[in-house]
Amino acid sequence: MQPTILCLDLEGVLVPEIWINVAERTGIPELRRTTRDEPDYAKLMAYRIEILDRHGIRLPDIQAVIAGMGPEPGARAFLDWARERMQVVILSDTFLQFAQPLMRQLGWPTLFCHSLEVEANGRIAGWKLRLAEQKRRGVEAFKALNFRVLAGGDSYNDTAMLLAADAGILFRPSAAVVRDFPQLPVEQEYAGFQARLERLLAE
Amino acid sequence: MQPTILCLDLEGVLVPEIWINVAERTGIPELRRTTRDEPDYAKLMAYRIEILDRHGIRLPDIQAVIAGMGPEPGARAFLDWARERMQVVILSDTFLQFAQPLMRQLGWPTLFCHSLEVEANGRIAGWKLRLAEQKRRGVEAFKALNFRVLAGGDSYNDTAMLLAADAGILFRPSAAVVRDFPQLPVEQEYAGFQARLERLLAE
Repeated sequence: MQPTILCLDLEGVLVPEIWINVAERTGIPELRRTTRDEPDYAKLMAYRIEILDRHGIRLPDIQAVIAGMGPEPGARAFLDWARERMQVVILSDTFLQFAQPLMRQLGWPTLFCHSLEVEANGRIAGWKLRLAEQKRRGVEAFKALNFRVLAGGDSYNDTAMLLAADAGILFRPSAAVVRDFPQLPVEQEYAGFQARLERLLAE
Repeated sequence: MQPTILCLDLEGVLVPEIWINVAERTGIPELRRTTRDEPDYAKLMAYRIEILDRHGIRLPDIQAVIAGMGPEPGARAFLDWARERMQVVILSDTFLQFAQPLMRQLGWPTLFCHSLEVEANGRIAGWKLRLAEQKRRGVEAFKALNFRVLAGGDSYNDTAMLLAADAGILFRPSAAVVRDFPQLPVEQEYAGFQARLERLLAE
């Protein structure tokens, strides 16, 4: 039994896409804009902060919206199953303050992500990338600490992590990701994901 | 708010010393022998496995004993408090299979440790060190991933981890450790430990 870490993406794997849901639940469609529309992430975040300011939306407002989203149905049971069998670290490019209401609902799993700069009155003033390419570098750090690393993610920004792991699995990916990474196995449901992890643990 | 990881020792900090309790609860005093009596860890483990074999004690028996020990009073509340405020990774030189019944009672925090080799019938056949000096190297890996690292431990095998961290705290250490590491602050109760961490987080 080799000590094993499962690295999981957050949005799309355990919880819904945060910004898209915030856009829907606040009724502000401009917040739907993603890196597909604006590939420059710094510009995209500056745009989002401007929109939030214009609508007077502060961190506690967004956290309430995020708490209402909740995890994907079945995510908590899947995560509980995994945490009894291996170490789980969520590697996400979201911000600590956004993830927090969801981490509470998931039983506070360990999360490596980025953080927001927030003013005393709750206004989001900026954001801070903890580390570039943190998903891949997280996997490499765990391997250097002699862990076997399994990983699951859904999108292009997960593929470096999935390929760096001893075994990487696409969970509910888009058709484009599946087409571009034919070497990665695909699961659409937690039951299948769990069965695949179980087989990997038994190897 | 810099992303922060709290690295915690397990035995003596969150749970009682495992082998000493197993010795007491099984009524086999030879299992009390520690590295103080036999500094060669490989010899000590071979001796322990021989004692277990002689008494016909298998892993499930020990796990039942360990489940009965439970965490230290107040440990779960302290850990829950910490997990809401930072990432927590337990860095322990115990074995996964021994820690498991305690991790269940602590809400499955992330644990980096070693593992036992167990036969199909539950006999403990050997053990496998995941990594030498894993506590210090764990802290260094987290720092390289741009985390601020706080750490708490009680004994000599924790001091490299405590000194490598951005801030290290001795929790319920022996008088000898306190004397040998006067540069490390000391806390005896979870309330004081928590207050000190709170001050560090506010810095």
